Amino acid sequence: MDVISVIRTKRDRGELSDEQIDWVVDAYTRGEVADEQMSALAMAILLNGMNRTEIARWTAAMIASGERMDFSSLSRPTTDKHSTGGVGDKITLPLAPLVAACGAAVPQLSGRGLGHTGGTLDKLEAIPGWRALLSNEEMLSVLDGVGAVICAAGDGLAPADKKLYALRDVTGTVEAIPLIASSIMSKKIAEGTGALVLDVKAGSGAFMKTLEDARELASTMVGLGTDHGVKTVALLTDMSTPLGLTAGNALEVRESVEVLAGGGPADVVELTLALAREMLDAAGLKDADPAKALADGSAMDVWRRMIAAQGGDPDAPLPTAREQHVVTATASGVLTRLDAYDIGVAAWRLGAGRARKEDPVQAGAGVELHAKPGDTVTEGQPLLTLHTDTPDRFAYALDAVTDSYDIASPGTPFTATPVVRERIA
Amino acid sequence: MDVISVIRTKRDRGELSDEQIDWVVDAYTRGEVADEQMSALAMAILLNGMNRTEIARWTAAMIASGERMDFSSLSRPTTDKHSTGGVGDKITLPLAPLVAACGAAVPQLSGRGLGHTGGTLDKLEAIPGWRALLSNEEMLSVLDGVGAVICAAGDGLAPADKKLYALRDVTGTVEAIPLIASSIMSKKIAEGTGALVLDVKAGSGAFMKTLEDARELASTMVGLGTDHGVKTVALLTDMSTPLGLTAGNALEVRESVEVLAGGGPADVVELTLALAREMLDAAGLKDADPAKALADGSAMDVWRRMIAAQGGDPDAPLPTAREQHVVTATASGVLTRLDAYDIGVAAWRLGAGRARKEDPVQAGAGVELHAKPGDTVTEGQPLLTLHTDTPDRFAYALDAVTDSYDIASPGTPFTATPVVRERIA
Repeated sequence: MDVISVIRTKRDRGELSDEQIDWVVDAYTRGEVADEQMSALAMAILLNGMNRTEIARWTAAMIASGERMDFSSLSRPTTDKHSTGGVGDKITLPLAPLVAACGAAVPQLSGRGLGHTGGTLDKLEAIPGWRALLSNEEMLSVLDGVGAVICAAGDGLAPADKKLYALRDVTGTVEAIPLIASSIMSKKIAEGTGALVLDVKAGSGAFMKTLEDARELASTMVGLGTDHGVKTVALLTDMSTPLGLTAGNALEVRESVEVLAGGGPADVVELTLALAREMLDAAGLKDADPAKALADGSAMDVWRRMIAAQGGDPDAPLPTAREQHVVTATASGVLTRLDAYDIGVAAWRLGAGRARKEDPVQAGAGVELHAKPGDTVTEGQPLLTLHTDTPDRFAYALDAVTDSYDIASPGTPFTATPVVRERIA
Repeated sequence: MDVISVIRTKRDRGELSDEQIDWVVDAYTRGEVADEQMSALAMAILLNGMNRTEIARWTAAMIASGERMDFSSLSRPTTDKHSTGGVGDKITLPLAPLVAACGAAVPQLSGRGLGHTGGTLDKLEAIPGWRALLSNEEMLSVLDGVGAVICAAGDGLAPADKKLYALRDVTGTVEAIPLIASSIMSKKIAEGTGALVLDVKAGSGAFMKTLEDARELASTMVGLGTDHGVKTVALLTDMSTPLGLTAGNALEVRESVEVLAGGGPADVVELTLALAREMLDAAGLKDADPAKALADGSAMDVWRRMIAAQGGDPDAPLPTAREQHVVTATASGVLTRLDAYDIGVAAWRLGAGRARKEDPVQAGAGVELHAKPGDTVTEGQPLLTLHTDTPDRFAYALDAVTDSYDIASPGTPFTATPVVRERIA
């Protein structure tokens, strides 16, 4: 087996054989295939595609590159969620304890943010004392004791994906549906969850800009999960405008706690409940009532125990940014657009996100929204509040939000895009 | 300027701007753009192409990455030839001294063989004492004194191409016409020749298997040369069967000396004269008579002086391989096919070529042909003689030649493919 013949096969629009895929993924993980060879192959895959058989084998090879976790010792059924990422997407925070409160075990291995979308671990790290890094034993113990755990994925899980993802990030080969699908699913399958609900976002603030691309990615992933014996469902959800009223680390924790306390923005509550129902259903807990678990405080109880189990103080005040800047509405009328991507970029520039993996993030930085599409606004009223510890970033963030919204004349009819657009199973 | 946006432009079928091309070629040469990023870009170029404007700029950027030679001090017009490579293609050896004997200066910067096609420098190194590596001053002095020089290209010429070529070789991105054309032409233009004749080969033993691909490569290169003020002409020539009756280093030197002595195989003489006429014509020497220079011994005189000037002994006996193996005809009739690629692979396996750049070659190894397509052969007569110092290679070479020829029943009509198929100017 030699790497050039593998590259040529895909370059010339051929189908990679099982042997070629197994070999190239393993040889790349071991360092026998060099980065420059894998990036040429990744570009050929991006441009010429892979069929379902190839994607399934590629995913299996990435799973086989590392360890697999085993949750069979737990008394509850496991169910997990993965979101393809969006602006203001704090859903994991209320969702994991909520689903645990309804009787499932939620092993939520999460990542950090890169670019304009935030990362779940960055958000939770805004809570004083909370730590993301657990050993496999610690993770199992929190999961067993509390019912939910949100932590960093260990290095042993799908190391081939870890290496390939870092390579794609610097070689313009991120946007390949076969590689995105196999990257996500290899980790989720290796993690060993019994059921999986995918939140595949479509819109300006998402990775997939169109519903069509999101649909293709979702059905590829549902197929992969099903083929590997994981009960998998996908919801296609809207990411044309931010979720909720905050984008930023501590700001999103605060909003998540509001949801757990029975309040919070309607769209966040709606999506949290929709995903919770799918996760519980996929886990066989069809009679669970997540709306009740939000209302009666049992989800909040799990949240407090989950945070405490990882060293966090659920009662500690959350960090706030040192400086604020308010952006006011330039006209009176109906807010018809508030762009998710622009708000994500602004939050990122204010210090909520990072440009490179090594960069630190500011816990208090981000954007607060004072209106959502469909709301009536008055000229001069606050529309956004920008938060940062480093005020020299305001100009740079303001640049991103200048064209982020449209206000139509008063009384203009407005039809909101539904939060959940399609379901794929 | 950042590399990912450059990669994305080409990946998404856009046109690279002048600034993008200048930056990425320079940044790659300096090591700021990494190998894995350039290989992703090379694959995107291979699959999505470059237009004439992009190729011209890419070539200019590679020229600008290094030094340019200057032959303006010479009293004679300079004219050069480049062949895209074939089996038994020893034409440079008789051609350079022949054209010099007719009044032009021939600065022939050549390469070594890799894979199934031989390299001019490997062939000349079969001559005891001859050395390929000259300083720029030595090169100019041989060119000035003798009229022709064949030597290795210095490290200062188009270093971007040197680095990129090595990368393409290991990443399955060699076969991209824009990259092949810019690679060849950047070196030839930087070398500073006033006129250039391209021998673009088509057929099984060539890089371009079809006349159509060869035509596209040829016209791309002619366009590049013309755009840079080099008078450039291309001949499309046949490489379905080996040139002459030998493939291998010392074997080809011997055949070249036969041509310089007024003999040699008809196809080698025909192509040598055709290319000589084009080179002389492009240099403005329209009245020169290369056939006369072959017949009267003046080309041989230049050859002897050229070899001696680089430390070689033109009278020393050439190395011969320690072992021979004769392949006989399996039937009587008309030889209708003798495959260039198969013979090239056999010569390579016998030790005439190298698998990796660092490998040594055997001076005496190679294949001798006893018949050419169109000849009548008798069952049991010698068809090929295989030469090597390492007889354990015979089996491996025999494997390559088993299906290398067809013999049709006696009297079958046969139409030979012309040596020169088209001319592009």
